[in-house]
Amino acid sequence: MTTIPGVGIGLGVAQGPVARMAEPLPAPDDEPSTIGAEAETERVREAVSAVARELEERGAQAGGSARDVLEAQAMIAEDPSLESELDARISAGATAERAVHEAFATFRETLVAVGGYLGERAADLDDVAQRVIARLRGVPAPGVPDPGHPFVLVATDLAPADTALLDLDQVLALITSEGGPTSHTAILAREKGIVAVVGAAAAADLAEGETVIVDAAAGQIITSPTEEELQRARNRAETRANAASAPITAGALSDGTPVPLLANLGKPEAAADAVTQGAEGVGLFRTEFLFLSSTNAPTVDQQRESYRQLLSEFRGKKVVVRALDAGADKPLAFLNDAHEENPALGLRGLRALRANEDILREQLTALAAADADVRADGEGADLWVMAPMVATVEETSYFVGLAREYGIKTAGIMIEVPAAALLADRVLREADFASIGTNDLTQYTMAADRLLGSVSALQDPWHPAVLTLIHTAGRAGAELGKPVGICGEAAADPLLAVVLVGLGATSLSMAPSALADVRAILLQYTLADARRIAEAALAAPDAASARDAARAAATAQKETNR
Amino acid sequence: MTTIPGVGIGLGVAQGPVARMAEPLPAPDDEPSTIGAEAETERVREAVSAVARELEERGAQAGGSARDVLEAQAMIAEDPSLESELDARISAGATAERAVHEAFATFRETLVAVGGYLGERAADLDDVAQRVIARLRGVPAPGVPDPGHPFVLVATDLAPADTALLDLDQVLALITSEGGPTSHTAILAREKGIVAVVGAAAAADLAEGETVIVDAAAGQIITSPTEEELQRARNRAETRANAASAPITAGALSDGTPVPLLANLGKPEAAADAVTQGAEGVGLFRTEFLFLSSTNAPTVDQQRESYRQLLSEFRGKKVVVRALDAGADKPLAFLNDAHEENPALGLRGLRALRANEDILREQLTALAAADADVRADGEGADLWVMAPMVATVEETSYFVGLAREYGIKTAGIMIEVPAAALLADRVLREADFASIGTNDLTQYTMAADRLLGSVSALQDPWHPAVLTLIHTAGRAGAELGKPVGICGEAAADPLLAVVLVGLGATSLSMAPSALADVRAILLQYTLADARRIAEAALAAPDAASARDAARAAATAQKETNR
Repeated sequence: MTTIPGVGIGLGVAQGPVARMAEPLPAPDDEPSTIGAEAETERVREAVSAVARELEERGAQAGGSARDVLEAQAMIAEDPSLESELDARISAGATAERAVHEAFATFRETLVAVGGYLGERAADLDDVAQRVIARLRGVPAPGVPDPGHPFVLVATDLAPADTALLDLDQVLALITSEGGPTSHTAILAREKGIVAVVGAAAAADLAEGETVIVDAAAGQIITSPTEEELQRARNRAETRANAASAPITAGALSDGTPVPLLANLGKPEAAADAVTQGAEGVGLFRTEFLFLSSTNAPTVDQQRESYRQLLSEFRGKKVVVRALDAGADKPLAFLNDAHEENPALGLRGLRALRANEDILREQLTALAAADADVRADGEGADLWVMAPMVATVEETSYFVGLAREYGIKTAGIMIEVPAAALLADRVLREADFASIGTNDLTQYTMAADRLLGSVSALQDPWHPAVLTLIHTAGRAGAELGKPVGICGEAAADPLLAVVLVGLGATSLSMAPSALADVRAILLQYTLADARRIAEAALAAPDAASARDAARAAATAQKETNR
Repeated sequence: MTTIPGVGIGLGVAQGPVARMAEPLPAPDDEPSTIGAEAETERVREAVSAVARELEERGAQAGGSARDVLEAQAMIAEDPSLESELDARISAGATAERAVHEAFATFRETLVAVGGYLGERAADLDDVAQRVIARLRGVPAPGVPDPGHPFVLVATDLAPADTALLDLDQVLALITSEGGPTSHTAILAREKGIVAVVGAAAAADLAEGETVIVDAAAGQIITSPTEEELQRARNRAETRANAASAPITAGALSDGTPVPLLANLGKPEAAADAVTQGAEGVGLFRTEFLFLSSTNAPTVDQQRESYRQLLSEFRGKKVVVRALDAGADKPLAFLNDAHEENPALGLRGLRALRANEDILREQLTALAAADADVRADGEGADLWVMAPMVATVEETSYFVGLAREYGIKTAGIMIEVPAAALLADRVLREADFASIGTNDLTQYTMAADRLLGSVSALQDPWHPAVLTLIHTAGRAGAELGKPVGICGEAAADPLLAVVLVGLGATSLSMAPSALADVRAILLQYTLADARRIAEAALAAPDAASARDAARAAATAQKETNR
């Protein structure tokens, strides 16, 4: 047995045979066509149309947001300006393969230059081009494998389009050689509760078909495992499955300190499933879904109905709704300026809402009305509202004041800008509560774009600088008696969840699939334990050492508690 | 007398008659031409060519970087693709004025879509279009006034092109109604030592020709001043002029605590002037100038000669050289990826150098050789090198280790990422010193693009969150006995300079023109005073209150010291 280190997502363990993502096809060479332009044109038409149909079919099967992505890809494949690019190259003597390679590359450049939403779609073009070229060559398309039996998927990193095509029932575990704890793969693994180890560089050498153990709790992959190791892993997986199906209790530490475990939701339809998985309420309800599909803001009535639907699923429970967080990677044409050089540092979140106050007022109107609607026919939900991307005390007062105007009782802010964390003592005097968005807080604290691969190593919420800011906010909350929750990805990492509680987090909100693991680990430590584990992480010089120090402190603590 | 509040730049006071920037011309209406396409074409050719000649002439007069900007504008005006856009519109029946308006707007869109350097030039097009339309109409071009006598310039905000055209000998003071302490106007005022009050919203109502007092020290403009007020202002200006011409002493507080006052320089040629203005050394030597003009990195020998020239001007004095800081608003084609969504959060500074280690190694080779060259013929300079955009302890060790390899004795880092400030205790264990870049530190702490107008209100180094981070770094330096200097714009604000020393800054580096004011104010306070003033600012809820609290504490301190 040998082990490959990586970053584990969650606490699971799984085993099975490796299946690798097929590597991209090499670029077609630049030899002139030997069969003539007419035949090449016919070949390319057939291949493009077949790929477009295939994408549509897969989209229809996948449903949901995957369908939208795949249908958009199918439309791109048949774009008329792409067709004329193809024709021009074939007329000039290129083969169908080479024409596809070049025309898609040119079209990609155009999309990138346009920027914004279309620019982001540029990466999809490579995928479509690869599919068309594979079809022209009669080889299997690169992408997710389909070995015909359950498998451990090994990839460099997964793109959204890959995961849309992935038959999750066949995936025993995920391994990536690149990508960190906030990569798309990690987010997918948490959302779907798939065992995963990411950023395991040496996994690039794993062979097709070899059996491995993927141990997310230990953050490693075991190759050539012994029968005993396989059996131990099977036992652990079984124990964990039993724990997950154990009766759901309220989130708490072993000394009884309550730590409400809440769900991050993006649509009211996801509420029922979150409750089944043990959510005690909603810690982050994102309202962007109401706005992203339309070119104008939705009406107050449309919003009211969505909020009513959400609140009625959580009668007697807390529901934290975030005001529209447009801008940065979620631009809205009617709110944001497309020409910002650095949209993540631009007029986004509350800044954009303030510049378009009508939209914020309509949202608060709809929320207050929905709250009343639900109360009118039974017990109400405990509605809290919060503003995204707050940097100053003045912005806090502005938002809280506005919420009060609409009779909303509990109003707070997201802490995701370093300034808001540093001045939490002053911000929390104005707000009823704060919720820490660890993804953006990490992005700004490290000055590293959370969506940019080349700086992904810096994008780690375990970095002691990020933990220090969370600690500052946690202490301010404790002093003022105001709740400070966590609603970023970090809360879904079980060991980090313990650290966050030790730093002063009073509730944790996460993808519902992560709730069981976090609930289980919290029950192993007292508040004093959590604080000691947090101290160990805080004192470390970097993210990896912080993770190691916390793990060591947690292990030592368990020994002591035994 | 009435007063208009604003943000004062420096400590000066000045008076004189207002001259306003002419407002932009209204868009030409869409009536068809009455004189026919041929005549309109002739008109437009003449106007475009005349404006291009005028821009070139002004460029030749201005010299330096202004010449480059203006020559680029002249070239844009005569771009062939712009010409064909103009012809197309005139053939379709447009007037010359309307054709210019539309064609420039279309061309602007194209540049913006291309992005990068060309995208940034897009704003210049508006200026060129306005000049051409003004010429077609026979009215004065919008832009800087030329009343024929010295004046107080009142503008919304100044663009780089405006200031290039400004005859500074005629400008008594600058007032802007928009723009904050880091706006282009403020930077210009500091660099050139011009009295300025920026962000004075009510200044928009000042009338042409009325006499005002511009009091930067008090951060206000006095309208309809009495003769007594005018006389008092004259006296103050005279006292200040005398102080500036007083013999230059080493920077120090009134209790004798030394605070070396250093210069921020961008080219070796600026060294002599900095020494004349009292620089005790160089606190920030930017090396970008060596790289920005070429498409490839300069050779080691080219660099060595530039560094030798610099170091030989500062024999026996400290010279802090910053390794190439490419990326964000200073992209280099051979170093940076043009397609980052948020270049300020991308692979910039040390991150980009690490990905292109040859360039860093060449720079260190050239620096070590230049250092030896200077020592070979007399006393050497005290060469320090530092890395830009450091976020982690590991990056610090990497850079310091590399500098040591080349025999460079003193190696440190810029603190401009919040993480580096928060973990200054750990970073400074690896580095010999740190220098705080307040502009970027403010940008990241507030998550507000320093070059974006819509969030400029957040971009204020007085924000207590920024001061808190500076304090954290200052304390870490004091504990470890490592110098922590300031090299951002903030050091040039005299009152803020006192606060920065109170927070633990051991040296201040700034545009040389700001040295005299800072030297004078430091001599008014002891270190204990500075700490008390800093405490007052730290405790404030926002930037404006911090400034007010520091001013109040400083005034109270002066009363006590009397």
